[in-house]
Amino acid sequence: MDNHVYKKVEIIGTSTISSDDAIKNAISRAAKTTHHLRWFEVVETRGSLKDGDVFQWQVTIKLGFTMDDN
Amino acid sequence: MDNHVYKKVEIIGTSTISSDDAIKNAISRAAKTTHHLRWFEVVETRGSLKDGDVFQWQVTIKLGFTMDDN
Amino acid sequence: MDNHVYKKVEIIGTSTISSDDAIKNAISRAAKTTHHLRWFEVVETRGSLKDGDVFQWQVTIKLGFTMDDN
Amino acid sequence: MDNHVYKKVEIIGTSTISSDDAIKNAISRAAKTTHHLRWFEVVETRGSLKDGDVFQWQVTIKLGFTMDDN
Amino acid sequence: MDNHVYKKVEIIGTSTISSDDAIKNAISRAAKTTHHLRWFEVVETRGSLKDGDVFQWQVTIKLGFTMDDN
Amino acid sequence: MDNHVYKKVEIIGTSTISSDDAIKNAISRAAKTTHHLRWFEVVETRGSLKDGDVFQWQVTIKLGFTMDDN
Amino acid sequence: MDNHVYKKVEIIGTSTISSDDAIKNAISRAAKTTHHLRWFEVVETRGSLKDGDVFQWQVTIKLGFTMDDN
Amino acid sequence: MDNHVYKKVEIIGTSTISSDDAIKNAISRAAKTTHHLRWFEVVETRGSLKDGDVFQWQVTIKLGFTMDDN
Amino acid sequence: MDNHVYKKVEIIGTSTISSDDAIKNAISRAAKTTHHLRWFEVVETRGSLKDGDVFQWQVTIKLGFTMDDN
Amino acid sequence: MDNHVYKKVEIIGTSTISSDDAIKNAISRAAKTTHHLRWFEVVETRGSLKDGDVFQWQVTIKLGFTMDDN
Amino acid sequence: MDNHVYKKVEIIGTSTISSDDAIKNAISRAAKTTHHLRWFEVVETRGSLKDGDVFQWQVTIKLGFTMDDN
Amino acid sequence: MDNHVYKKVEIIGTSTISSDDAIKNAISRAAKTTHHLRWFEVVETRGSLKDGDVFQWQVTIKLGFTMDDN
Repeated sequence: MDNHVYKKVEIIGTSTISSDDAIKNAISRAAKTTHHLRWFEVVETRGSLKDGDVFQWQVTIKLGFTMDDN
Repeated sequence: MDNHVYKKVEIIGTSTISSDDAIKNAISRAAKTTHHLRWFEVVETRGSLKDGDVFQWQVTIKLGFTMDDN
Repeated sequence: MDNHVYKKVEIIGTSTISSDDAIKNAISRAAKTTHHLRWFEVVETRGSLKDGDVFQWQVTIKLGFTMDDN
Repeated sequence: MDNHVYKKVEIIGTSTISSDDAIKNAISRAAKTTHHLRWFEVVETRGSLKDGDVFQWQVTIKLGFTMDDN
Repeated sequence: MDNHVYKKVEIIGTSTISSDDAIKNAISRAAKTTHHLRWFEVVETRGSLKDGDVFQWQVTIKLGFTMDDN
Repeated sequence: MDNHVYKKVEIIGTSTISSDDAIKNAISRAAKTTHHLRWFEVVETRGSLKDGDVFQWQVTIKLGFTMDDN
Repeated sequence: MDNHVYKKVEIIGTSTISSDDAIKNAISRAAKTTHHLRWFEVVETRGSLKDGDVFQWQVTIKLGFTMDDN
Repeated sequence: MDNHVYKKVEIIGTSTISSDDAIKNAISRAAKTTHHLRWFEVVETRGSLKDGDVFQWQVTIKLGFTMDDN
Repeated sequence: MDNHVYKKVEIIGTSTISSDDAIKNAISRAAKTTHHLRWFEVVETRGSLKDGDVFQWQVTIKLGFTMDDN
Repeated sequence: MDNHVYKKVEIIGTSTISSDDAIKNAISRAAKTTHHLRWFEVVETRGSLKDGDVFQWQVTIKLGFTMDDN
Repeated sequence: MDNHVYKKVEIIGTSTISSDDAIKNAISRAAKTTHHLRWFEVVETRGSLKDGDVFQWQVTIKLGFTMDDN
Repeated sequence: MDNHVYKKVEIIGTSTISSDDAIKNAISRAAKTTHHLRWFEVVETRGSLKDGDVFQWQVTIKLGFTMDDN
């Protein structure tokens, strides 16, 4: 069995729809440039307001991925 | 550029629908009496249970708003 | 008035649908073997990834219930 | 069922008698100007000293109360 | 010397008298069904309010006990 | 000796000059509407950036003040 | 794909040999009565002392396991 | 006005009577060898158990005192 | 409105002058290789000592920047 | 004296041998692509289990390194 | 290479000038009685207020120094 | 039964061999000047790096000891 090494990066996704959607947007963007994404951990949920309602959900996550061995 | 000063208050919103909806209810209620709401931060998510299901979502948030200068 | 005593257990629910659904799955499973469930508190939200999207939401909650007095 | 909204404020009660009494003093003072007080959470317990003994207990609590809907 | 293994459970005791009494009630109840209780750690102190006074002290503790080796 | 009761509010001061100046601005603004300010505690220091330099310091503090007894 | 539900319990393992060994002892003991153990998380490392040396390593871990669906 | 410098030390007081009494015992003992004690902060409350009751309260506090300038 | 995605990196700036200057040095260095810097958050302030004085301020910050969409 | 700037990255090393070995594996892998590694800080220790024993140690560390000035 | 052992003590420095100056005052005072001071870590920044302005900055730091081997 | 009072001090042990050895070195050094050492708690594990390997393990612990009553 290989002793894989993983790296975590911290990303903030945003969405006007929902907190879950903000997470998905962050992952979707990161997947364009980072391979082997394995898991995420929610660090913080916040958002901006406008006219007494949520304008934009902003969710900070950590993304874990396998480091290639070459 | 003005050096605005902001204040944060801690509010708990509730909802029988979803955690996001509990946040929206808190903001909606606060907007009736507080102007210049700018952002929110989720502090804690919890809820009451009934018959093996979520009865009510309870989300504690901090609400940030601009303090008027007069 | 009785001085009830409560116990908390830590459970991780999973779902391919949403973070709220992962919480509901944890509660639904716990309700099969634990009575008098009263409240939950979200401890951590994370998940596994696949093809640049959320594959499974994993939410850790604490579940509070009344301890029977016999 | 109504989706009540609650607010939390942070108060420090003091007492020369005991830590529990400092909490009671904070609640008693807050009750003069705030209605619908529902619960408290202890945030910090400290105190001042004099002649090798506790001079004054100082307990910081958060007080939760229902926001009226008008 | 034996390498004992211990387990911790999380319990909430309540009391209308004092915070210390709430802890004692939690321990007393747990002792009915759990043997070899060794120590406790206070996790959180809170309570419900009524008429501007503490109605019920609610103290969350962790209870440590020796796991029998059979 | 009186058993004073204190309240804490959370304020964010900003400044284009320094982190200490952001704290002073928050206190100066709060003093316009709140009497008997006694102490502050720094909660978080952050800021916005522009052209590779700090544009605005933003310091969150808690402000403690004596509650009048009438 | 099944939406498994997991439970976490808190255990303290002890050892006169090393901190890693204390963890192994906790897991070994728990495995006698709990099936489907999947992972552990170290919560705290401490120990007792005697004659200026470590007498016993004491490591608190959380143990995660799959809850059977029947 | 002098710019005093203070030092904090961490002490655990014990008592068979109450949590408040454990704090008083810690302060009383420290006062024998440390002058100019000014304040304390509770860090942790725990205790040992015997026969389903609290055997000994153990409260960790930090003690602040003025450093003499000579 | 675009749903921007942001990334945070952790940097330690140093300075022999002041804590604020250490932050500015970190930002200035990061700006050479990272575009679209938007905000910073102070994580930790520490420093090395020499001859009873601060020799070097060392401030850890998180730097947030917009991820380009290509 | 130069005011160096440092960066921290978060890595998870794994090992079937020991927790210390998992740390060494993470550092060894990172050293292949990152120069000027200076220090590490342990963030979390966990692992996967199999047949009542540790299968793989997983240690999350932060790695600090000097940023080259060109 | 020697395996040095270090000790940390917790000190509060005060200043009417700035937060950085309060740190310097704490270090300056500690250097009178403690040799081999190596580093400091800021634990908390607070202060007393007077007439709507900062009266005294109070910064708690931990001071690390080498323990002599005799 | 005596109500003993304990004190905790914060020490950093170092070792080129292992994290456990760094703890033992700290205890061994402290035992030269402090009697009645009873327990330790690990606060932080870190280390310096050299040539892509751990150069020195640095473990911060708190050491508890009984205060003599004279």
